[in-house]
Amino acid sequence: MHRAGYLESPTMAYETWGELNEARDNAILIFSGLSPSAHASSSAEDLSDGWWEEMIGPGLALDSDRFHIICVNSLGSCFGSTGPASVNPETGEVYRLTFPVLTLEDIAEAAYGVVRALGIEQLHTVIGCSMGGMSGLAFCVRHPEAARNLISISSATRAEPFSIAVRSLQREMIRSDPKWLLGNYEPSDPPLTGQRLARKLGMMSYRSPEEWIQRFGRQRTTATEENVNDPFKVAFSVEAYLENHANKFSGGFDPNCYLYLSRASDLFDLAEHGGSLKSGFKRLQLQRALVIGVTTDILFPLHQQQELAEGMSAACFDTKLVELDCIRGHDSFLVDMDAFRPVICDFFEGDCE
Amino acid sequence: MHRAGYLESPTMAYETWGELNEARDNAILIFSGLSPSAHASSSAEDLSDGWWEEMIGPGLALDSDRFHIICVNSLGSCFGSTGPASVNPETGEVYRLTFPVLTLEDIAEAAYGVVRALGIEQLHTVIGCSMGGMSGLAFCVRHPEAARNLISISSATRAEPFSIAVRSLQREMIRSDPKWLLGNYEPSDPPLTGQRLARKLGMMSYRSPEEWIQRFGRQRTTATEENVNDPFKVAFSVEAYLENHANKFSGGFDPNCYLYLSRASDLFDLAEHGGSLKSGFKRLQLQRALVIGVTTDILFPLHQQQELAEGMSAACFDTKLVELDCIRGHDSFLVDMDAFRPVICDFFEGDCE
Repeated sequence: MHRAGYLESPTMAYETWGELNEARDNAILIFSGLSPSAHASSSAEDLSDGWWEEMIGPGLALDSDRFHIICVNSLGSCFGSTGPASVNPETGEVYRLTFPVLTLEDIAEAAYGVVRALGIEQLHTVIGCSMGGMSGLAFCVRHPEAARNLISISSATRAEPFSIAVRSLQREMIRSDPKWLLGNYEPSDPPLTGQRLARKLGMMSYRSPEEWIQRFGRQRTTATEENVNDPFKVAFSVEAYLENHANKFSGGFDPNCYLYLSRASDLFDLAEHGGSLKSGFKRLQLQRALVIGVTTDILFPLHQQQELAEGMSAACFDTKLVELDCIRGHDSFLVDMDAFRPVICDFFEGDCE
Repeated sequence: MHRAGYLESPTMAYETWGELNEARDNAILIFSGLSPSAHASSSAEDLSDGWWEEMIGPGLALDSDRFHIICVNSLGSCFGSTGPASVNPETGEVYRLTFPVLTLEDIAEAAYGVVRALGIEQLHTVIGCSMGGMSGLAFCVRHPEAARNLISISSATRAEPFSIAVRSLQREMIRSDPKWLLGNYEPSDPPLTGQRLARKLGMMSYRSPEEWIQRFGRQRTTATEENVNDPFKVAFSVEAYLENHANKFSGGFDPNCYLYLSRASDLFDLAEHGGSLKSGFKRLQLQRALVIGVTTDILFPLHQQQELAEGMSAACFDTKLVELDCIRGHDSFLVDMDAFRPVICDFFEGDCE
């Protein structure tokens, strides 16, 4: 691992769409944000909708008729790739907190292993969203020969203190839940309360105050039988919205995996590759880069997109910065497809809408 | 009480600086934010620094040589005024969650009682900071004859959904702490963990991302003996900063009082006074108003200051809006005295620096 320790024969989960051509030069690798799986889109093997369903497919912005598209589940996650919830083959026990410190460099290396195992020397493009954008930077900085192009979506060269504070508090909410048991919770009885709180803070950082003014304002909910005598019950629509999202998400993600991936997002710093941001950018050997950011993003704010684009331009390859005026904040790349699709389509010179 | 219920002979704590003149027309009433006591400045009775020490005193912006300055501890708080931590004289038991729903209108009415008990017919000025700005609006809307001028600092006509979400999550952190015991915690063993988490989220909303970039960047702490083996230990300076603040604050405030005051901040809506914001503003009978806001405030953002100032201007009294370019966010009025003092001094035509 990048900091210390090692993993005994880790497993990587990935999914693919479209065929690798004979020249083996049409592959696209996607790094997801913190929480998604490798199931970015539906396929013959899994018909359920993926997290980027409207982006990937025949004739879509990521056109599976033209490209061989690969999405990996990040190392350290809990959807098939080895992580803190996996069994350590050396001990027969679940890793839990004995998992080594995870970094985005490790996530990048593990994905590089997948790419090589698929017989791909050089990717057409690496795409990374949010945390995945930093994983993509780590990939390109460590293996400059392994990709021609990079698309960074709502990401950064490194986290700023506000984002570190958000994630630190999310982790503390989980670790403060008595059911966390220092990471030794029963899988059937996880620290759900802490996870629910952390998810709510997550939603507050993923969306934008402007969206909520439009969407909820000061609209009230109707009291249900069960909460009618609670003076602090959910009373405003925005509270009900957070409650719904927290309940939906929290059961599905392993808390220890979440903690490791969250901390890995804090730790990444492009400047560690060469001693400064400038030298980090210089290590990239790309032909083209596309940086997309959103005006209302409070977790990876617009000035960080500008820093990325300026750094890449200064490193002398063709870089385009697109600032999208979406209202749904950091999450826009997941929910505002009409804004993102044409930009990505254009990058690949496709003719999708 | 404004919504329902009543309090049997509530107590109000207040402090004063400077003398009431013979005409009884030089009194200034201060409504604080959610957490401070009535001790806004030092005095002969209490030499310790108050929360607005640099603002109040002889020759200062709130000049105790010229004005009789009164600061109340909000009804519902825990620093001398009756609140959920007080004993209900009718039962001999601490109110806890039997305290009636608290509103800022109740806080305003209780302060009105203090003003009348002091023999003051009409205040020179009401000043409210943060939540206190909304209490001040409630005061002036309910008793238009009781004040000539109003200063609103980093406040609003009503909370927007993002602020409601922040406070809702803070309350849930406290209520999720097993030690909360549905409000029946022992005073010696309060839900400190929940309070610490809530305070950290508070600090994130009270300050600004820009300040933290300047102040902390990605600076690291040195590992202490005790946390060296914890993979999620405090590692960045911003985490240590939040930890220090949380530990300092949490022991000092009663959790149930916090919950009531926090919810009261959500509930206030000037538009409930007359059916619309416009009619709410129309009920004010002020001579002059001053609205001060800060560019980096994320809890009471600048557009809310503009809304306040426009509403007051439309209600046809002399209103001045001052937008301060302070970096320390919502808290600026507590920590950036050099920016605030001259504006307030100017309002009172003083000659302080």
